[in-house]
Amino acid sequence: MQIGLMGFGTIGSGVYELINSKFNDIRVKKILVRGLHGRSENLFTTDKDEILRDDDIDTIVIAIGDDAVSYEIATEALKRGKNVVSANKEIVVNHLSEFIKLANENNVKFRFESTVGAGLPWIKTLCEYGKINNISKVYGNFNGTSNFILDMMKRDGIDFKEALLKSRILRYQEPDYFDDITGVDSRNKLIISMMLAFNKFVVPKDIPTYGIQNIRSLDFGFFERHKLTPKLMSYAMIDNDKVAAIVAPTLYEQSTLRANVRGNNNMLGMVGDVIGEVQIIGAGAGKYSASNGVLLDLLEIINGDDIKLTLPERVTIDETRITHRFYFSFDQSSYKIERILLPYVHSIFETQDSFVITTRNISLDTCIDLLEKIEDTDERFFFAVYGDEEIS
Amino acid sequence: MQIGLMGFGTIGSGVYELINSKFNDIRVKKILVRGLHGRSENLFTTDKDEILRDDDIDTIVIAIGDDAVSYEIATEALKRGKNVVSANKEIVVNHLSEFIKLANENNVKFRFESTVGAGLPWIKTLCEYGKINNISKVYGNFNGTSNFILDMMKRDGIDFKEALLKSRILRYQEPDYFDDITGVDSRNKLIISMMLAFNKFVVPKDIPTYGIQNIRSLDFGFFERHKLTPKLMSYAMIDNDKVAAIVAPTLYEQSTLRANVRGNNNMLGMVGDVIGEVQIIGAGAGKYSASNGVLLDLLEIINGDDIKLTLPERVTIDETRITHRFYFSFDQSSYKIERILLPYVHSIFETQDSFVITTRNISLDTCIDLLEKIEDTDERFFFAVYGDEEIS
Repeated sequence: MQIGLMGFGTIGSGVYELINSKFNDIRVKKILVRGLHGRSENLFTTDKDEILRDDDIDTIVIAIGDDAVSYEIATEALKRGKNVVSANKEIVVNHLSEFIKLANENNVKFRFESTVGAGLPWIKTLCEYGKINNISKVYGNFNGTSNFILDMMKRDGIDFKEALLKSRILRYQEPDYFDDITGVDSRNKLIISMMLAFNKFVVPKDIPTYGIQNIRSLDFGFFERHKLTPKLMSYAMIDNDKVAAIVAPTLYEQSTLRANVRGNNNMLGMVGDVIGEVQIIGAGAGKYSASNGVLLDLLEIINGDDIKLTLPERVTIDETRITHRFYFSFDQSSYKIERILLPYVHSIFETQDSFVITTRNISLDTCIDLLEKIEDTDERFFFAVYGDEEIS
Repeated sequence: MQIGLMGFGTIGSGVYELINSKFNDIRVKKILVRGLHGRSENLFTTDKDEILRDDDIDTIVIAIGDDAVSYEIATEALKRGKNVVSANKEIVVNHLSEFIKLANENNVKFRFESTVGAGLPWIKTLCEYGKINNISKVYGNFNGTSNFILDMMKRDGIDFKEALLKSRILRYQEPDYFDDITGVDSRNKLIISMMLAFNKFVVPKDIPTYGIQNIRSLDFGFFERHKLTPKLMSYAMIDNDKVAAIVAPTLYEQSTLRANVRGNNNMLGMVGDVIGEVQIIGAGAGKYSASNGVLLDLLEIINGDDIKLTLPERVTIDETRITHRFYFSFDQSSYKIERILLPYVHSIFETQDSFVITTRNISLDTCIDLLEKIEDTDERFFFAVYGDEEIS
């Protein structure tokens, strides 16, 4: 196997190291970089077309952040009859159908194991289990940075900004950490998982997405008193071809499995009609975990495993399928907020500097209406799914 | 693919159902049963040789409990150029090398995904990750029945006998439940995992194996006070080609992931130098989970994935590599016991009807010496690894 490696950042350099230290039958022939900075032109180039035109190169690894360039490389490489392994998530979210078609037409493979849960065995498990099972749910704590932040706030009692800073120092986050904490990265991973598990595609903006950016130390006071642990969860279900999905912080009872996924780890879960529930836990980010994911794809291509991806069908979302309790917290009580939430209140907790309302069981679409009304009031608030039981 | 299905008990009938309901390209041509009981001779037979001699049949699924017959079927089928999928664990533990050799010589495959963790993606993950990683640890809560019993004792406050009875009613256990509660089933699964992860084979009797059969409600009193949760764990590590292993109840702090694996679930874990720690959780037993495992093997054979198994090397065990605290509990204090354990004591807890000694950190081989001495005293006792931290 001869590789054209597009990008030499965290993931690209990790893949290169790993191939050189462990695999004699894989050769990285050429590496795309932004600037040569004195590196050898034998191995490095700043011209992607030099790599794409090279007939010796049978497989392209995309490890660059620029979505437009990644898309261009993927389509061009597939058309030229090269296998493509993408570590770029966005292009998988937005163009998977096109890539599958092109790969099938050109009798090559398009793979993307590292885009969800990095090196954890997730994409392949979904593909293989999907052949045996009707998968009815996929969910996950898909973002290591937000898990790290929430875990530190809980354990060390520090506030959001300090925890965010520590996570940045430890380099857990995606290039744009805003995507981590607002749930956008999690949503992308959920969409990819849904395409494989349900064979359905939902456009990103249709999935209600709430992050952890507004969580306060005061919220942790509430959680501690009620023995809850917050996790940024992504969740999707399918029932009679109707899909429901949400990305939101979720409050789990302290002595559940999900509450005890620590640090930078991901939890990836699915429910199938034959296997039941399967959960995979491990480092879902980081140089070597992601490189492990890319190598899994490369070995699968070498081994000739013939997993056929099917084209996901585009569907709209039906949020009446999820009902749950929800948690809203504000800096102070306000008449406007109370008027909006009062018909749905389960409990109200008021202290000097915090005002918390939990709802009784309501449908997610009702909750989304409420969220829109609250957003209109301009109040700063933190929202979560209130999970006495695990969301289901 | 044309299947000869050996056995029509829980797993055999599950596999048959699943194939018929979901797979058009797989046909079960003949099924081996003990007695026909009026069933059609077109599909059923009591003669295994009729199936083995049938040239239309390319793949044999072994789903019978009799180890000698299973072994005979596996070797004969491989020699005749048929793929073999074994749901029988014992023959994999005792003859894997021979099966791999025969399969390679005859250019067919030998697979056994369902033997550890039933349908969970474990065997294949170990094989694939082993190509990318040096795997230094494998461990697991490999037995659903014992997990179910311990979970019920903790949650419902019932005693061991009642919990065992409930688990039997719910049919979670292996045909011989003695293997479940004494750790023998767990040990078999650990040995299979070690062969794949480390490429080493340790004979079963060399692995110190302690079960849950002597646990009492009184022990749960101690656990509750010290915020611990017991799990029957199997654990193996490799370091500079030296292997250490143990199967024993292990006491985890309540708010750890491992303490919160519930009911009938398994947890399967590994540590690799590239991926870090990966843990897989789900139903590791039951008709459909096991059938899911067999189907994974069949689809892998159909897809032509070319995973090469290597011959595990037989090694002896070096228990000096594991050091830990340990827990001993007795019905009453005794001078003999005190004399044996005194040099290693960390704490002693005595109540009217229980006498508990925890040790300081000692090496596992020292601990095994102590266990042998205690066994000589004829005292009934419960033994566990005392895991303030997770065993490592």
